[in-house]
Amino acid sequence: MIRTIDDIDLSLDDAQAVGVICNFIVDQFHKKGFYAAVIGLSGGLDSALGVAVAAEALGPRHVTALAMPSAESSKASLEDARLVAKQCGVRLLVEPIDSMEHALFDGTTGVDRVRIGNAAARFRMIRLFDHSHRHHALVIGTSNKTELLLGYGTWYGDLASAVNPIGDLFKTQVREMASFLALPQRIIDKPPSADLWPGQTDEGEIGYDYETIDKLLYLLVDREFSLEATLGVGFKETMVRDIIRRVTASQFKRSLPAIPKISLKTVGIDFHLARDWGH
Amino acid sequence: MIRTIDDIDLSLDDAQAVGVICNFIVDQFHKKGFYAAVIGLSGGLDSALGVAVAAEALGPRHVTALAMPSAESSKASLEDARLVAKQCGVRLLVEPIDSMEHALFDGTTGVDRVRIGNAAARFRMIRLFDHSHRHHALVIGTSNKTELLLGYGTWYGDLASAVNPIGDLFKTQVREMASFLALPQRIIDKPPSADLWPGQTDEGEIGYDYETIDKLLYLLVDREFSLEATLGVGFKETMVRDIIRRVTASQFKRSLPAIPKISLKTVGIDFHLARDWGH
Repeated sequence: MIRTIDDIDLSLDDAQAVGVICNFIVDQFHKKGFYAAVIGLSGGLDSALGVAVAAEALGPRHVTALAMPSAESSKASLEDARLVAKQCGVRLLVEPIDSMEHALFDGTTGVDRVRIGNAAARFRMIRLFDHSHRHHALVIGTSNKTELLLGYGTWYGDLASAVNPIGDLFKTQVREMASFLALPQRIIDKPPSADLWPGQTDEGEIGYDYETIDKLLYLLVDREFSLEATLGVGFKETMVRDIIRRVTASQFKRSLPAIPKISLKTVGIDFHLARDWGH
Repeated sequence: MIRTIDDIDLSLDDAQAVGVICNFIVDQFHKKGFYAAVIGLSGGLDSALGVAVAAEALGPRHVTALAMPSAESSKASLEDARLVAKQCGVRLLVEPIDSMEHALFDGTTGVDRVRIGNAAARFRMIRLFDHSHRHHALVIGTSNKTELLLGYGTWYGDLASAVNPIGDLFKTQVREMASFLALPQRIIDKPPSADLWPGQTDEGEIGYDYETIDKLLYLLVDREFSLEATLGVGFKETMVRDIIRRVTASQFKRSLPAIPKISLKTVGIDFHLARDWGH
């Protein structure tokens, strides 16, 4: 029974959850006919956990991590990526994206941070999928449930992947699982950041701490609480309205391109291979 | 009653179909809070029709076409893009992508055509979405139903957009609607091509002509014919098996990244804003 915010417990059965995720990875790779994985490793917590579960599921020999620093990335991030790759036993390739950024923005003035950040996320996607084609590997995504629900990520950039093993874990659960898997404490403790400019933190940008966001999202999404019910538990109305607005406004990032229905069976509307197609 | 291939009639009520598409565009833009559209214009038929219906629905002043030639694009394509933009009354911007291609592949040897083609499609996506952010515009996609079903396009490249008005039209129906809207005959008549290398044609690459492919896809997808039933109508077994294989193998391109189910409500599995969320 949830009476106050403190009653909300998002802790996992870690061993079981790791098992579900690893089985999912093995199953997806088997179904799709792949043995090798490629994954972007930023030095942050989400991609570190992604590498750890991929290595656990597929064996470290079958996992390649790509560090793709931009002109804006901090040097410390690359060191953290090396630390994670070493601990997980996976190969790390460093493939900078700054020359593509220059090619896109050269001669353009007044480019804001959002444009630079989105372009960087998409250049990384290009490097990952180019690698995946070259080495017959699947691209593993590392967007957590909090980011997916808030739309805190770049559409067709970091949100783009073939399989996303950590997509049903809230950010606080990512941290918990990373601890369970004994990932480096430095990575677990540092403030979450998209690393787009010096001093950027997710929580500073979103305006709330992840622990409170996750508990609220759990009530709104998983438990289908009404706005009023979340207020009764003790959340502040401005925060609840803001979070609801973010989830609603970012729905397009969790959707396929919209298509108007004209024919009997329309892609993305009522043509679903698994369900309808006997072949 | 379909007894032979000749009985399959994919012709549209063009006026009505154009109406459905234009209403869809207006409705999507209204819902999403946008007035302006940006659309890649290659000089081919699909993007020409996309520009035509966007201009019809939103007014030509609200539509920007981007021509994004790569090092491999033919000069004639750019001329065709200019012709379409002029006829539809929309602004055309030319923003080449060759410098980004060089930045990605410089120093790399033995890059095959598929890698170059995929990267080009994704660089165009980046330019379109960068433009859309800068000018508060929605990206209109131009993948037809035949391409979507066969997976003949680049995931997170040309298949990526916000709305795709022509996604439920087979290629032959795109041609028919382009005629109905009196698009330049030169565009309607030229052989469909991804324009990735000189002399490339879709039909040469796929191995069958679009008219036959579309009729077969209509039976398999829209009418849910079995393989045996399509043979009874007169299709060749090798072709039917090949097309079924292509549709099946490209399912991932019509899907969101796969996520393992751990929580009560999972993004892409059972969290659907429209259906479940009262906010």
